[in-house]
Amino acid sequence: MSLTNGSPEAAATAAKTASFTLASLPASARNEALEAIHAALTASKDEILAANARDLELARKAAADGQLSQALVSRLDLGKKGKWEDMLQGILDVRDLEDPVGKVQLRTKLDDGLILERVSCPIGVLLIIFEARPEVIANIASLAIKSGNAAILKGGKESTESFIAISQVISSALSTTQVPNSAIQLVTTRDVILQLLSQDRSIDLVIPRGSNDLVRYIKENTKIPVLGHADGLCSIYLTATADKEKSAIAIVDSKTSYPAACNSLETLLVQDKALGTIWPDVAFALALKGVTLRLDEPSKAALSSTTLPDGTVLDATPEDYDTEHLNLTLAVKTVSTVEEAIAHINTHGSHHTDSIFTSNEAEAEHFMNQVDSAGVYWNASTRLADGMRYGFGTEVGISTNKIHSRGPVGLDGLTIYKYKIRGDYQPTTGYGEGEGQRPWKHEKLSF
Amino acid sequence: MSLTNGSPEAAATAAKTASFTLASLPASARNEALEAIHAALTASKDEILAANARDLELARKAAADGQLSQALVSRLDLGKKGKWEDMLQGILDVRDLEDPVGKVQLRTKLDDGLILERVSCPIGVLLIIFEARPEVIANIASLAIKSGNAAILKGGKESTESFIAISQVISSALSTTQVPNSAIQLVTTRDVILQLLSQDRSIDLVIPRGSNDLVRYIKENTKIPVLGHADGLCSIYLTATADKEKSAIAIVDSKTSYPAACNSLETLLVQDKALGTIWPDVAFALALKGVTLRLDEPSKAALSSTTLPDGTVLDATPEDYDTEHLNLTLAVKTVSTVEEAIAHINTHGSHHTDSIFTSNEAEAEHFMNQVDSAGVYWNASTRLADGMRYGFGTEVGISTNKIHSRGPVGLDGLTIYKYKIRGDYQPTTGYGEGEGQRPWKHEKLSF
Repeated sequence: MSLTNGSPEAAATAAKTASFTLASLPASARNEALEAIHAALTASKDEILAANARDLELARKAAADGQLSQALVSRLDLGKKGKWEDMLQGILDVRDLEDPVGKVQLRTKLDDGLILERVSCPIGVLLIIFEARPEVIANIASLAIKSGNAAILKGGKESTESFIAISQVISSALSTTQVPNSAIQLVTTRDVILQLLSQDRSIDLVIPRGSNDLVRYIKENTKIPVLGHADGLCSIYLTATADKEKSAIAIVDSKTSYPAACNSLETLLVQDKALGTIWPDVAFALALKGVTLRLDEPSKAALSSTTLPDGTVLDATPEDYDTEHLNLTLAVKTVSTVEEAIAHINTHGSHHTDSIFTSNEAEAEHFMNQVDSAGVYWNASTRLADGMRYGFGTEVGISTNKIHSRGPVGLDGLTIYKYKIRGDYQPTTGYGEGEGQRPWKHEKLSF
Repeated sequence: MSLTNGSPEAAATAAKTASFTLASLPASARNEALEAIHAALTASKDEILAANARDLELARKAAADGQLSQALVSRLDLGKKGKWEDMLQGILDVRDLEDPVGKVQLRTKLDDGLILERVSCPIGVLLIIFEARPEVIANIASLAIKSGNAAILKGGKESTESFIAISQVISSALSTTQVPNSAIQLVTTRDVILQLLSQDRSIDLVIPRGSNDLVRYIKENTKIPVLGHADGLCSIYLTATADKEKSAIAIVDSKTSYPAACNSLETLLVQDKALGTIWPDVAFALALKGVTLRLDEPSKAALSSTTLPDGTVLDATPEDYDTEHLNLTLAVKTVSTVEEAIAHINTHGSHHTDSIFTSNEAEAEHFMNQVDSAGVYWNASTRLADGMRYGFGTEVGISTNKIHSRGPVGLDGLTIYKYKIRGDYQPTTGYGEGEGQRPWKHEKLSF
């Protein structure tokens, strides 16, 4: 890992060159590099926490002056209970994941002695832009090395001292391994994000890790593919045939278990037929958890005989159905049919994760086929949309893209494939369906 | 299929709406639509050829005035032997391909009664921009319908009359099927390419079918992902251990079997040790086929005692190694090692298809791992890079992208996936590794 104060272009070019070496290292060499990083960070805990303390001191001053939020200061603190240990364990967890590189995905005999293979390989150079959380740098460096990709890291300025300390430790650790130093680079120059985003000849994929605003800014300002999502406006369509008690529990889970998460519920669509049966109980359960309900006319009227805490019920505005509140506010809208629910979600949602609660299988399948989202669920909490929960072992990010990777992205999302052919110099002109030509065999082989 | 003279934005929005309906049609309904198109085109041959004749007449006049090339006029002619029949057969061939939609790619039991599935689905709305060949419209409409994608088609102006005639026939054929009319739209308004390329809210993927200049222009002017390649600068590295006779045949095949194709050989890298042994025979075989050789010093000197036709040998300029000649011109450069060959290809190539000719397996594997191209071959002609030759049954295009699809793209390249979860309202808060929590099962299920 190197610390780059030079031009973004030089960093990108050096990363591209290093990526070729990294791409051909065996899994053992990549795993050894992760172990070396783990050992070096373990040995350098004191100096890294000292650097982190300097970041924290500046941040606390800025917070006292009202220039930084307390939440951000809290996220900066590497010394917080369990954070350091989790960061280190994360490196070993990534090491233990299955190697995503070199997997044969297809093998075809084109002819005798002419074999086509499709093999997974690293994408090349990743640009990872993240905000202030200092532990992210170790996680990201691990994911890049494990998947054989070079990476350029650009972190939030509030963690600069921590990032520099960690990257120096990683750098000296990598110097004892086969991973080239410039395969992982930390850019510390200020205000270079736009220049980095213009390096589309060298950088193959941008991965933003941070706020919606960061992601949106990046998507607006680069031609390089971006893996991520700006918004997480998830919906549940509650039909009249849903289970009342279970629905209340699952909707409370979707809304309140982590309101600031992108997979949290933002809009509840209630079938008109459910207004008098299931809805009041659901509303009551949400209100008990402190959720503020922004209601349309019918869903409000249906609660006229339900006693709710003061301030629980507000009138919804049209903007509420296009807003990712990220807090304990829930927009509620009444619809009559699954078609209306689907149309609302496809128009107002963010194509992230949407669920239908119903006991009607045909209706559920129709909903899952028609809703144009990365996750489409039947009787399931939107909070399930997560790489760890899906069993991927890690999560590179959650994508709402329509190509490459969609939904929670595991290590596979950092790979692409290449086609290899091993032949015996056969000229292509000899093949075909014409007279005297040799037909292709196109025989699928096992792999 | 509808004919759109309105705004590109209206076309894109209508296509997006239609895409949801199309995405949930069963394979049978999509295949029936292809059959309806086939039958309608068959029945309307005369009127379509009459429209085509009007395009041809204008084009011939323009050619006579020197405003159009004869090659373009020739490509316009739908009446040319076999072209009409091939176009019609192509529709049935696409119908007969395996359905790329609804394939289960992963099935995991997260817990009892909580099943995760990853299922292939259409991407959404394709924007397909092509040049004058009128038969392309039927091919593209077929691929889009088969893969469940809506498509906006914008063709070259020289074929306008043919396109309009074909699209009217397709439109009336589709009106008898379940495929919504605005799922396939032909935009006939002039000079709207830039406006179409800005519809990134509705259009999910751009597929250019045409010249390098067209592809480059599109890539420069849109934020929508582009599937394709601007250049095809393919190389072969000829080592001293390659088979002499077979190398000559395979290099001649790579260079001369279709010089204007993107997978044709443009640069031959000759190992210095092969200059006195294999190279003169290869040069002689190429010269016999009319190839002009642009040589560096050593490769030229090595031919001093080889008799070649006049004009066969020229001195290479540095630009030759960065040029896709697309004709019978071959740039030749001498290198000493496989590392030098790899570095040259990764720097000067277009990441399309590159091959090594050697009898050394370790060297070949190293080359295939290190060369950063969609196709990396050992003792095989670069001309193999083709969807039909790979056995995909069709070719949507050839991609040099590093994400989603790389190399020859079959129907699968027009799909993405979504995650479906079928559950029983389980709250996520109950799961985890903590005390009293329920661990995830993450059990792989068959599919």
